[in-house]
Formats: sequence, C-alpha cells, structure tokens
Amino acid sequence: MKPLKVGLLGLGVVGGGVWNVLSRNGGEIARRAGRSIEVSRIAVRDMARARSKVGDAAAITTDPFEVVRDPEIDIVVELIGGYTLALELVREAIAQGKHVVTANKALLACHGNELFAAAREKGVMLVYEAAVAGGIPIIKALREGLSANRINWLAGIINGTTNFILSEMRSRGLSFEAALADAQRLGYAEADPTFDIEGVDAAHKLTLLASMAFGVPVQFDRAHVEGISKLAQEDIVHAENLGYRIKLLGITKLRPDGIELRVHPTLIPEGRLLANVEGAMNAVLVHGDAVGPTLYYGQGAGEEPTASAVIADLVDVARLQGAAPEQRVPYLAFQHDAMADTPILPIEDVRTAYYLRLHVDDQPGVLADIARILAEAEISIGSMIQRPHGDSGADIIFLTHQAVERDVNRAIGLIEQLPQVRSSVTRIRMENLA
Amino acid sequence: MKPLKVGLLGLGVVGGGVWNVLSRNGGEIARRAGRSIEVSRIAVRDMARARSKVGDAAAITTDPFEVVRDPEIDIVVELIGGYTLALELVREAIAQGKHVVTANKALLACHGNELFAAAREKGVMLVYEAAVAGGIPIIKALREGLSANRINWLAGIINGTTNFILSEMRSRGLSFEAALADAQRLGYAEADPTFDIEGVDAAHKLTLLASMAFGVPVQFDRAHVEGISKLAQEDIVHAENLGYRIKLLGITKLRPDGIELRVHPTLIPEGRLLANVEGAMNAVLVHGDAVGPTLYYGQGAGEEPTASAVIADLVDVARLQGAAPEQRVPYLAFQHDAMADTPILPIEDVRTAYYLRLHVDDQPGVLADIARILAEAEISIGSMIQRPHGDSGADIIFLTHQAVERDVNRAIGLIEQLPQVRSSVTRIRMENLA
Repeated sequence: MKPLKVGLLGLGVVGGGVWNVLSRNGGEIARRAGRSIEVSRIAVRDMARARSKVGDAAAITTDPFEVVRDPEIDIVVELIGGYTLALELVREAIAQGKHVVTANKALLACHGNELFAAAREKGVMLVYEAAVAGGIPIIKALREGLSANRINWLAGIINGTTNFILSEMRSRGLSFEAALADAQRLGYAEADPTFDIEGVDAAHKLTLLASMAFGVPVQFDRAHVEGISKLAQEDIVHAENLGYRIKLLGITKLRPDGIELRVHPTLIPEGRLLANVEGAMNAVLVHGDAVGPTLYYGQGAGEEPTASAVIADLVDVARLQGAAPEQRVPYLAFQHDAMADTPILPIEDVRTAYYLRLHVDDQPGVLADIARILAEAEISIGSMIQRPHGDSGADIIFLTHQAVERDVNRAIGLIEQLPQVRSSVTRIRMENLA
Repeated sequence: MKPLKVGLLGLGVVGGGVWNVLSRNGGEIARRAGRSIEVSRIAVRDMARARSKVGDAAAITTDPFEVVRDPEIDIVVELIGGYTLALELVREAIAQGKHVVTANKALLACHGNELFAAAREKGVMLVYEAAVAGGIPIIKALREGLSANRINWLAGIINGTTNFILSEMRSRGLSFEAALADAQRLGYAEADPTFDIEGVDAAHKLTLLASMAFGVPVQFDRAHVEGISKLAQEDIVHAENLGYRIKLLGITKLRPDGIELRVHPTLIPEGRLLANVEGAMNAVLVHGDAVGPTLYYGQGAGEEPTASAVIADLVDVARLQGAAPEQRVPYLAFQHDAMADTPILPIEDVRTAYYLRLHVDDQPGVLADIARILAEAEISIGSMIQRPHGDSGADIIFLTHQAVERDVNRAIGLIEQLPQVRSSVTRIRMENLA
C-alpha cells in the first residue's frame, strides 16, 4: 500500500519526538500498520533549526496553512498547542477533508464539541490519544477497551508537573515554592507554570475523560479547578502521619443526579497504587461496573512518550482511513446521537470526605464548640488529632466521613467565626478510591 | 443498524457474565457500538440450568455445532476452554465464515498459528482480549496503543490464583499448601490447580503477549515454565528482609540474539508497583523504546471482568464486521507477512540476577569455597547474608548481579558437591524491572 502522507504542524518537543520515533521505528511501525507513515511536510517557526533536524527528508514551511491545504496530505498532526492558531488550523484541516491527530487538550476541552461536529460532517477522524496522560493509551482503554461497562468513576494523576512537585515536597520536605523551583530547573515545569500548578491542564484532560466515560459533551467551564499552589508542607506531613498521601487528582463520578467533575489536591490512603505514583509519572484509575477497578500507568509527558501516542493514532488512522464512519470509534466513545445531557454538578453538591486543619487557642471548650458545629451540619468525624502549635495554641485536624461540600462550607464559615479559632480552616478533600 | 447476532458456546462463569453484562448494560453498550448486540443462540451442557438463566430470550441447544453452523449468527463466542472440542468448534466457526471471540489462552497459545492463518484465509476476525489478564485491555494496549514502539520487554502478574497464594504466604505467613487450600476454599483456585500453580496458565498468556510484542509466531512449547509449588515460606521472609517481594512473573524480553520467554517465581524490589499488586489482581508492565514503562492493572479473572473483555471484542467486531481485512488490526499485532523468525532462547541462555540460598555446615572455609566457585563462573555477588540455622549449621543467601543461567547452573552443581553443603541450593531469579 502507498505510504500515509502526514503533515506536521510544529516541530518542538512533541513534533521532534514524532519525527525521531518515526525515523527510528519506521520499519517496526510499518510491520504493524501494513504501510509506511511518512511525514512529508512540516510547518515550523524556525526554518534553519528544522532543516538541521530533518534535512531534505520533508518539505518545510513557515506557513502552517500551506500544510493544512496541501492536497497530497492525508493527515494533519497538530502539535502547536493553545486555542487560537491551533483552532483555526484544525478547523481548516477538517474543512479540507483531512483527518486530524492532535495532542491539544486545551483545544479539545474548550472547542471539542464544535470540532467533533465539524469532523463528523466531513467524515474525517479527529483523534487525540496524546492529549491525556502522554504515552499511556488511556483514551483507547476508555473508548474501546472498557466499552462493556457503565463507568462509575475515574480518578487520575494526569499532570506530571504537579505530581513531581508533590513528590518532592513529601520526600524532601520542601515548600511548594522550593519544589516548583526544582521542577523548573529540571524541565518538569515551564517558566510560567500557572496552567499546571493551578490544575487547569489536569482539568482539560479530565474534561475529555469524563465525556468519554459518560457520553456527555465536553464542558470544561463546568469543572471545579483547584491547584496545589496553596498546599502547605505541614499538611503533607500531617497527612502522612495519618496514613495518607496528597495527590492532585482529577476525579469524575457518575451519580444518579449528575456528574462530579473536579480537580483538587486529595488525600488518598498510602497503600493505594495511585498513592505510589511518584515523580512526573501519570496514572488513571477507572472503575467500571463489570470490570471493577483498572489502572493505567506511565509517562504522562515528554518527547517520545507523547510521540508514542501520536503515532498510535496515526496507525489507527492509516488502518481506518478508507473505512465508513460507522466502522470507526465515535469521537467521544459514544455515538453522537446517543450523547446524554446529564448535568455536571456544582462543587457545592460534591459528596466526599474531608481533612480539616484548624489553628486554635488551647482553651477549654474550643473542641466542644467545633464538634457541635460539625454535628449540627451533619458532618461526622472519622478521626481527630490535636497537637500543640505555637504559644498556647494548638492544631486540630479532623478527618471527616463523607459529607456534602455545601454543609462543610457552612460549618467552616461558622468555625472561623469562633473567637478561639486563630486562622482560616485548611480544607483538603479525601478519597478512599476503593 | 440491525443487531449483531452472537452465538455463545458455554454459559459457565464467563458465559454467564457475558449474558449478565449484556442484559444489564445493553443500552449503554449500544450507545457506544451504534447497534445492539444480541445473544441469539447458546450451546450448553445443562439445558434446564441455562433455561432458568436466560428464559426465552435466546435459543438453547446442547449441540455447539448447531450454533457454529447457524447461518443467522455473525459471531461465535467460544467460552468452553481446553484444546479439544474448543479447537474443533473454532475451526468450524472459521470455516463457516464466522468471526470468533474467545477467552481461551490455552487454545491460542498452542494452536494460534493454525487458527489465525485459517481466519485470515476466510477473512474473519479472531479476537481474544479476554484470554490475557481478564478485564484489563492489555491486548488492545499492545496491539494498538503501543504500536509506535519497539517493545523491549514486558513482565506481568498474569495468574490471579498464584498471586493470591503468594500474597497469603507473605501477609499471613502461610505455607504454600495452606495458602493453596485457602485459595481453593475461596474459589480462587480450582480443585485441580495444576495449570495455575505450575505456571502453565501464565505461560499460555505470556506466549500470546510475546507474539504481539515482538511479531513472532506463538511458540508455547519454547516457553520456560516454572510454578510456585516448591516455594518455601522462608524464602519469602528472606526476600522481604532483603527488600524484595516474590511474584510469579511472566517475562519476555527481546535481545539481539533472541527472545527470552519465561514464567517463574521472581524477586522484585518492594517499591515497584508490580510488587504491590496483591491478592488475585493482575498487572502487566510493558517497556517500549518510545513510551518507556507503562503498566496495566485490574482483575485478571472472574465472571464480569472477563465478560468486560469479551464484550469489548464484540463491540470491535460489530464496528469492523464489514471492513476490509487491512482495516482491521492484525491478529498478532503485526502483518502476517511481516512476522519475524527471531528465535526463542533456551532458559540456559537467560541473563538475570539470582537469589541463592544454601544450607551449610558452619565451618571455616565454606564461604571461601563457595565464593571461589561463583567467581570462577563469573558470577559476581551483590549482597550476602549468613544466619545460623539448626545444629552447627548456617543459611547463606547470595543476591548475585546479572549472570547467564548456564553459568549459574554449573556453579550450583559444583557448590552442591561441596561436603559442607547440606542440601540442594534454592535458586530464585531476580528482576529489577527498571
């Protein structure tokens, strides 16, 4: 069969990885795909740099629209990122009847509904294994491998930067700021790390996973997004003493009344596999009603792991290029006319357990007052520790049983009004993941 | 689209699970597949029992060939097991032009080459996600998700019975016999547990994984197969004290001179995720050159986890039924005309690290003699402990660096001839999995 002609938009970290892996493993890949996959045209910003990498093996241009409109090209691989130029290019590629492979979670989490509809109309594939958890084939697992299941929930470590920072904070006792500086020095965090550390990147990925798990449109704007920048070293230590680790999790759950969709630091029992995912690694735990718990682990970012996912998509497209639309996997796992309108629940409706830390005056009655407030809000306490802290003060830590966030918010408001409570209450959600 | 008509051979544990999951999740599955999947005919041994389960919802027969030859049926799901009747039935189903879904690792590990060739000739699919690691979509990951990679090696806990027994031996200090009795009582081991405990079941699965990883024909007869029935409680304790856990691993590695293909008890560092896979759970660690390490974890057996995999295959077949052969994934991941003839290496050629335990007379010179034998065989020692054991005796445990098994065998033979060595040397292979 004739080679599949690929147009590459971007030759940065991931684009370079795609080039390298296709060059090195081209033979092995063709042994699987039944045809070779050939990058024939590349759009870049820096011609000279690109030329030094690819030589004369591909045409190079600085105009990405040239690639997208090239009639010789079967598939466009979008590795530019962001939602401005990338959005225009993917729109145009689809309009030109090209299949699109992208690693761009931000684009799909924010514009996926429009883009999938356009792709369906033109009968082209728009695939994105590399958009979530790098080289881990989690999208294939969710869209295909678990198709027999009603997915109950999933929880994932889907941002390597924050998991690296949290690992450093725990293992080396660093503050958030020091661990972030380390991550930047080692290339695990960008110069402007906001999207990673504030949970936005994880929420983009979670939004896609939730849509594939439950068959709902992508709704990034409904996700609760909370990062790790306010996490104190002392909470990591307290959590560890109580038998927990703190991870930035993306969690989505199907409940009878709607879908929970939330990214936040989370205490999880130290024995869980997810608790032992260290450094920049990613892992996603998916719970289906038939299969039970399944977990997928690997490198969530980096040149070649991400390229591995991009190329797996290319091989799929190579196989299914000539197939009828119904012979392909639906964009978001579910047929477009079978999508559900299950609402995404606001964070106040979330039901989970909580870690609460309070700094109080060490005086008689304070614990009684707090316990009364919690009881009146119907929040029951699983365990509690109190430790001296500072001058005639104490830290009290509660681990609650499951409660509704709205009730917890109200209780925290009342607790913070108590005269013996010295500062605002630290609240971290807890999941058992059983 | 019209429903996909499935003929089910067997309504035991897995067959019953398929029936239950399709009944419960039929709507959800059709939302994904775009058509419904309908079990229209079932072959069973006990008509009355089957009738009480399925009522009038499917035709029931005691003649499986009736199902296989039914012109109304699109796909045959073979859940009978074994290689006699199942082989005949799968052959006949293929001859009749039916697609086949099977959970039968023994059949494919021993007759896969013949069956895949027959299926190719007839242009039908023969898929087997449920044959390895139950509900974990490891076959989809290997055949499709990691298609960009040169697979370097994989190692898996792919037999739940033995992992359950090893977990009990470690956590409760039980002997192998006591843990096996427990496993039988709890339904994790069969009345005749030979295939599980002697590693045969794991070797069937590993044989399939190796073929998909490296693109070689299935060669079960070349696998090294060693079970856990001779494992002593004391070795589990020694391993633990040295920072290791013992797991029954299926390991396959691509080397420049061939493929290692082996199932045996293995010491692995306690911090590895694989070391923390407990009870009847399964996990497979796959190392690809681009993606690095990836791990897949879940329930490796049981009614609904296995049904989850069978039905995922049914959904794939439903999609690709009308597709051209080149639009489908190759049976063993690689195109049939691109299979390699890389040899499977004999166990004597395997290169790994070793745990060696010797029971010796506690006399001057014995350690010197042993150390000399090891040195002459070019086996270098990573660590060693010596403990008093019995009357004027001692246990010596060596952890060696990597060595060739042939050299280790020769050294063990010489060591066992030393007059101060009281019993045969216990040898357990060790893998770092890094």
